[in-house]
Amino acid sequence: MTGPEEAESVTLDLLKKKMVEFAKERDWEQFHSPRNLLLALVGEVGELSEIFQWKGEVPKGLPGWKEEEKVHLGEELSDVLLYLVQLSDICGIDLGKAALRKVELNAIKYPVSKQQSQKTNDNTLFNVNNGTESG
Amino acid sequence: MTGPEEAESVTLDLLKKKMVEFAKERDWEQFHSPRNLLLALVGEVGELSEIFQWKGEVPKGLPGWKEEEKVHLGEELSDVLLYLVQLSDICGIDLGKAALRKVELNAIKYPVSKQQSQKTNDNTLFNVNNGTESG
Amino acid sequence: MTGPEEAESVTLDLLKKKMVEFAKERDWEQFHSPRNLLLALVGEVGELSEIFQWKGEVPKGLPGWKEEEKVHLGEELSDVLLYLVQLSDICGIDLGKAALRKVELNAIKYPVSKQQSQKTNDNTLFNVNNGTESG
Amino acid sequence: MTGPEEAESVTLDLLKKKMVEFAKERDWEQFHSPRNLLLALVGEVGELSEIFQWKGEVPKGLPGWKEEEKVHLGEELSDVLLYLVQLSDICGIDLGKAALRKVELNAIKYPVSKQQSQKTNDNTLFNVNNGTESG
Repeated sequence: MTGPEEAESVTLDLLKKKMVEFAKERDWEQFHSPRNLLLALVGEVGELSEIFQWKGEVPKGLPGWKEEEKVHLGEELSDVLLYLVQLSDICGIDLGKAALRKVELNAIKYPVSKQQSQKTNDNTLFNVNNGTESG
Repeated sequence: MTGPEEAESVTLDLLKKKMVEFAKERDWEQFHSPRNLLLALVGEVGELSEIFQWKGEVPKGLPGWKEEEKVHLGEELSDVLLYLVQLSDICGIDLGKAALRKVELNAIKYPVSKQQSQKTNDNTLFNVNNGTESG
Repeated sequence: MTGPEEAESVTLDLLKKKMVEFAKERDWEQFHSPRNLLLALVGEVGELSEIFQWKGEVPKGLPGWKEEEKVHLGEELSDVLLYLVQLSDICGIDLGKAALRKVELNAIKYPVSKQQSQKTNDNTLFNVNNGTESG
Repeated sequence: MTGPEEAESVTLDLLKKKMVEFAKERDWEQFHSPRNLLLALVGEVGELSEIFQWKGEVPKGLPGWKEEEKVHLGEELSDVLLYLVQLSDICGIDLGKAALRKVELNAIKYPVSKQQSQKTNDNTLFNVNNGTESG
């Protein structure tokens, strides 16, 4: 590990600082209201979905995808992340802290012993207790 | 800073490892195909949007929001992040590395000197060169 | 009213038939699985969001928008609708019938007398009875 | 056909009128700004996605789905439609007219003779001319 930007050690805090600086340098802070950033995030989720839309089911690891497609996918995943980081920041939410807390809440909500390899939807009538990870 | 879970030092890699372990313990890996995770992410983006949907424009820092609302917001932001981390992992994308690269690409695409405090859409006819951060 | 394609009389059924024919002529039926169409719809919702993303709050009727912007907006709204119609069709759901039924369910869920000009979120802890239209 | 609400003849105009009346009776017009309705639509797309999220690939016609699941699906599809109709209305867009126009534009963009049963993404580097239906 040589520096703070080594991939394995990329923190949410580092990304936040980079995005704050990025916006400041371009005088873009004026556009970064919570709902503007939220809609920008929705836009990027749309672009991410477009990558997968005509592919039918896709196996783990994306066997058979061209290198350019994977690079493109990495860019769209990143766009979603970068807006998520900015949205959290502008709302005064510590995303890293919130995420660690959510993992703990999920562990309580879905205790290991009760899970029977079953996933259902939180929001349907058919929900049994061992449901989705989040809600 | 006392440990790897100190909020300021939360890495994407740490979240990835936690989610891998979480799924393994519950035998949920079988459900975590790329498109399943993508649709779960879209579901969480929907829940995030619901928090903001009837509020009209919301100022930075969310003045006037109740503490419970902010906690709820942190949970939905986290849900999006956790699925994003899992989706990236299952696709074999190093999200931290991809995000750093994307910030650099954006810096090239939107050089500081050319920005005139103007934001437009990449996808419209009205796009001039100094557009959105991502695409 | 002069014909079935008069704008005021555009039925969901007409749009469905047009899209069935459109796909058939191009041999695209093979791509139109439920989840492919759903992801395509999410992609279009993303494009719709991009139109509004940097605008801050937008008044009703879009005063000040250029004619091209309105035309573009109409196209994105249409793209969402056309995928929604196709998704419903492929799932065997009669969308027009379902929509009329949903309006009636909403009228029961939100009786006129109980509404106090208040909107809240179904999915929050702060939900009181006179909430959102849908859920 | 016995009346204007016969399922086969459900027009977008009818749904629009019902939703205008619905909002008026509840004094909800004040909440129906373009971006509020857009975020509500995104929320419903999220709920729609949740229905499909853990299912893997789903065949046409949804064989094996319980009746309640299909009813629930019809409700979520309807929620998306109803917000789309309201969003279009508030923006001054005639959705039926726009949709018919978009079908015609798509027919020009994707002429029958040139389609070779191939679908690609408009937004990737790999786009050849016979691409997606919309953009």
